[in-house]
Amino acid sequence: MTTASAIAKPEQIRLTRRSPAYWRVTIDIPPINVMGPEMVSQFQEVMSDLETDDDVRVLVFDSAVDDYFLNHSDFTAKLEDLTSMPAGPTGLPPWPDFLVRLTRLPVVSIALIRGRATGNGSEITLACDMSFASREKAILSQWEVGVGMVPGGGPMARLSQLIGRNRALEVLMSSEDIRGDQAEAYGYINRALPDDELDDFVEALATRIGAFDKWAIATTKRLVNTSLPPDVELGAGWDACIASLGRPAAQNGIKALMARGFHKPGDVENRLGYFVSKIHD
Amino acid sequence: MTTASAIAKPEQIRLTRRSPAYWRVTIDIPPINVMGPEMVSQFQEVMSDLETDDDVRVLVFDSAVDDYFLNHSDFTAKLEDLTSMPAGPTGLPPWPDFLVRLTRLPVVSIALIRGRATGNGSEITLACDMSFASREKAILSQWEVGVGMVPGGGPMARLSQLIGRNRALEVLMSSEDIRGDQAEAYGYINRALPDDELDDFVEALATRIGAFDKWAIATTKRLVNTSLPPDVELGAGWDACIASLGRPAAQNGIKALMARGFHKPGDVENRLGYFVSKIHD
Amino acid sequence: MTTASAIAKPEQIRLTRRSPAYWRVTIDIPPINVMGPEMVSQFQEVMSDLETDDDVRVLVFDSAVDDYFLNHSDFTAKLEDLTSMPAGPTGLPPWPDFLVRLTRLPVVSIALIRGRATGNGSEITLACDMSFASREKAILSQWEVGVGMVPGGGPMARLSQLIGRNRALEVLMSSEDIRGDQAEAYGYINRALPDDELDDFVEALATRIGAFDKWAIATTKRLVNTSLPPDVELGAGWDACIASLGRPAAQNGIKALMARGFHKPGDVENRLGYFVSKIHD
Repeated sequence: MTTASAIAKPEQIRLTRRSPAYWRVTIDIPPINVMGPEMVSQFQEVMSDLETDDDVRVLVFDSAVDDYFLNHSDFTAKLEDLTSMPAGPTGLPPWPDFLVRLTRLPVVSIALIRGRATGNGSEITLACDMSFASREKAILSQWEVGVGMVPGGGPMARLSQLIGRNRALEVLMSSEDIRGDQAEAYGYINRALPDDELDDFVEALATRIGAFDKWAIATTKRLVNTSLPPDVELGAGWDACIASLGRPAAQNGIKALMARGFHKPGDVENRLGYFVSKIHD
Repeated sequence: MTTASAIAKPEQIRLTRRSPAYWRVTIDIPPINVMGPEMVSQFQEVMSDLETDDDVRVLVFDSAVDDYFLNHSDFTAKLEDLTSMPAGPTGLPPWPDFLVRLTRLPVVSIALIRGRATGNGSEITLACDMSFASREKAILSQWEVGVGMVPGGGPMARLSQLIGRNRALEVLMSSEDIRGDQAEAYGYINRALPDDELDDFVEALATRIGAFDKWAIATTKRLVNTSLPPDVELGAGWDACIASLGRPAAQNGIKALMARGFHKPGDVENRLGYFVSKIHD
Repeated sequence: MTTASAIAKPEQIRLTRRSPAYWRVTIDIPPINVMGPEMVSQFQEVMSDLETDDDVRVLVFDSAVDDYFLNHSDFTAKLEDLTSMPAGPTGLPPWPDFLVRLTRLPVVSIALIRGRATGNGSEITLACDMSFASREKAILSQWEVGVGMVPGGGPMARLSQLIGRNRALEVLMSSEDIRGDQAEAYGYINRALPDDELDDFVEALATRIGAFDKWAIATTKRLVNTSLPPDVELGAGWDACIASLGRPAAQNGIKALMARGFHKPGDVENRLGYFVSKIHD
């Protein structure tokens, strides 16, 4: 029924074609789904597949790791491994390149969020066309300001349009964890659903859209995309993020979180919104 | 108390002046309020009346047909009858011409929605300044993508600003029926009201605004209108719609719906969101 | 713990430094917190302090007057006292100058709303980065159109982006009082909170943000600010407001409200939304 095509190198994301029209990308780096340079590169590769395929109409992102959709970056990786990667086809560095291409894809993209969607996980949500989240188990956040960083994947450019400037600034400046209900009330996601209904809901919607005409999907989406912020804004956000990582505030912030147990399963990852404040006590 | 002025030719919409300041346009083509070239022309005529009247402050759109506010286009009409109509004063074809002029009118426009507002009905809602809908009886939808079409009245340009890109794309790509409560939660309409309170609510609001100063209304609205998408985007959407109608996907989609009972009272019109998916089984 | 720095002249607003990072501005002109030229000037002065301070990260606006956050303008003041004030550093007249500078400040601003936030009070809310309001005691409104005026502090430019064009036009054209729950449902404010939880909530949030890195706050906010409407739109709104004040409609409207008890504690101020309609009976 479905075919799985492995991606080269240690597989961090898994592309599954449920049908020629309906693909899934499953994020799978236990135990906490952090994102490093290799994953970014694999995301870019999937975009190339999607951009050139004639049949695919819908793409769903989900996770194979309990409690995490897609998490913050891997702070144990060397920053140079990320910053030395070549620009993508958009002329932007790899992470904003991937996000921009995802947004402009002639394919409908859906984030199925169960567990933590922090930093990169929130940014991929904002780049997707739609998002549906577990009412009980989803946590969204842009935690960066709380630890002295600037977010690197463009929530500054996207959140105001989506949820209003006031709530966008609350999300960014408070750096708090946001539960499914609150995310739905703010319009950060399309809907929060009871956890045991979420998979069926997304499956039905993706299957439905997968049967529609590709030209009609692509043409309609292209006309919606006129309201997108300019791609260069995502580049500006990325540059600010990289600049922030070179400053003592961020270096000390990350170090303080690490000392408390960040970057491995446990209380700091579970309650990151609490701990980004706690380190300033 | 009120005077009714008949419009020439078979009357499909009825203009009633409840007072010099407060006008109503009632859509009335039983049994299902589909829109053909003649109705578009009558809508344009009403715009000319409104643009040149010194007293009118508020315009309400409602329907005289049970279960339908304003429905999709009349697919039994010849497409040439629509495409051969001359451009309106904005330089746009008649339907986007009407919608743009409605949006820019120095008059407050309100959609009172009871029953189905699909395609054109949703697009007139998005062009109005406000909309209030029956909680029990309103259904909004942009069903076009589901049947291989692109919407022709600009929801691609308008919905993202109104309800956020993620929910705009859900409405457009799912092509689903959206009930009053959901439409209110998404901000697609101003409010959903209990059906037996809807008329009084709109009447009170229209009467209230009808007593306010016309210059203050028009000047304030003009300053709000800076946030509108460029009018040409509605032209681009219209062109894509017409192009879609010439493709086999749309022709087959419409034909398949017709075979099941589309375009007359009954199950397909009542549950259009279900049937646009069903025809792809 | 905290130091209060008095501002010259009869003190209408009070600046308190709760810490070097966290400042408050408390509005205090009993009995009904109307805004005249002197207050505008004091607001501008505070902006200068904030723009040049290296430590401040967060600013909270609140009120010392029961039942009023910040109210409409002082209609007993001479209009010339306001219109003769010199343009501010942005080149805009003082009130829009203050609002634009507040929005662009490298500091997080929060409106803590208890009581009436009408006209200027709503406009300062829209210029702040976030707002939290008493569920029981907050009333927001842009009442101007109801009395023949155009709002002067830019809600035409800001409200559509925040709450959608349809609800923005409802707020502006209905000129109605909007309670905390409705304001939250529309996204006009971030959240409505039970009155007895409001102060603690804002205190905790301001304290939290006050501990974060100033560069990260300022850089992130600057990137969010790309989505702001052009500053000149606030100038255009101001000009329209001043023009409206010279017209008979507004002069008669204000006079009719005054005759009923406007501008002092009592029924007209408490139910302004009702009385702006009542005067047209």
